[in-house]
Amino acid sequence: MKVKMPAEVCFSLPDWVEDYLASCKKIARTDEERMSLVIQAARRNILEKSGGPFAAAVFESHSGRLVALGVNRVIPENLSMLHAEIVAFSLAQHRLGNYDLGAKDLPGHELVTSTEPCAMCLGATCWSGVSRVVTASSDQDARSMGFDEGPKPGNWQKELEQRGIEVRTGVLRDEALAVLKAYRQAGGVIYNSRDGLRAHKPL
Amino acid sequence: MKVKMPAEVCFSLPDWVEDYLASCKKIARTDEERMSLVIQAARRNILEKSGGPFAAAVFESHSGRLVALGVNRVIPENLSMLHAEIVAFSLAQHRLGNYDLGAKDLPGHELVTSTEPCAMCLGATCWSGVSRVVTASSDQDARSMGFDEGPKPGNWQKELEQRGIEVRTGVLRDEALAVLKAYRQAGGVIYNSRDGLRAHKPL
Repeated sequence: MKVKMPAEVCFSLPDWVEDYLASCKKIARTDEERMSLVIQAARRNILEKSGGPFAAAVFESHSGRLVALGVNRVIPENLSMLHAEIVAFSLAQHRLGNYDLGAKDLPGHELVTSTEPCAMCLGATCWSGVSRVVTASSDQDARSMGFDEGPKPGNWQKELEQRGIEVRTGVLRDEALAVLKAYRQAGGVIYNSRDGLRAHKPL
Repeated sequence: MKVKMPAEVCFSLPDWVEDYLASCKKIARTDEERMSLVIQAARRNILEKSGGPFAAAVFESHSGRLVALGVNRVIPENLSMLHAEIVAFSLAQHRLGNYDLGAKDLPGHELVTSTEPCAMCLGATCWSGVSRVVTASSDQDARSMGFDEGPKPGNWQKELEQRGIEVRTGVLRDEALAVLKAYRQAGGVIYNSRDGLRAHKPL
């Protein structure tokens, strides 16, 4: 079978991120400081038309050091998995050379994300090794904008906590929700799993 | 803030995949033919020590043409998201230049995966645009090997079907389960979300 396929997939942050981070403080000590950095990135992402209205970051929990920022890159990179959380986890793991951000020789890490994770990102959070998750706008906020959050268990916070992952929700929620609304008002694409699906009879 | 971070993340299939695919038939017409191709790739992946005991592929549903094969690459690439399904979706979307495998100008696509999807891959399946999912070994098979499948709703098949995604489970289940067992017997790493997690007091 001769199958031509790409041997490699690459994705990257938008160019504006470098300057954006240069303008931020070196250490973000509080949840609110961390979330503010993230939400401003989500807003910048829609202004620059470099992806959807979502951002996330991995921080060292104790020091407040930013390890990696992620923004939604689904449409620019043509990869449906590139939600902000997946981008942030991947960049953090790549930077640290470890698929487990909770590895014993690493400081503790946490995810700070502008919207509560969808089903995919909820699962990805479990595998990432973070020991804490901080969120701003809610699952319901995202759904009210037309985004399908996917097949999540109703008790998603408890599911994380059972795996040793602490959860804090609603930090700067209004600011994050304003970004979602700005994206919708600007006519941003709201893709979900039902777009383009037709009834295929496979065999 | 001066943050040095990788601007780009890349991942690839193992080198053996090209030769493996050259040895396969051009078209896989039945679910069993498609699954056999996938399970043999999962077995090869553990023999070559190029990742975990999982493989998945995206096929065109009608024609049976293979669009992309994925294998688990978490440990070799140090990226926790690189389950076989994510790799297959990403390679397929990259190849077709579309984040939506269900886009109106594309033929219908399906995911054929050696093990029922974990929470992350279940969500990713919704965003991928496939209109059908075929599985071999079960969620319970994976859990019995020590893999945590994550926070999945109990009715995951119904959740997919509600989104227009047809599901068929248990195709060549015993063959896929044998690969999971072979991996465990060979002492393969069984990572999950609790490895390495400690109690961090974040602030």
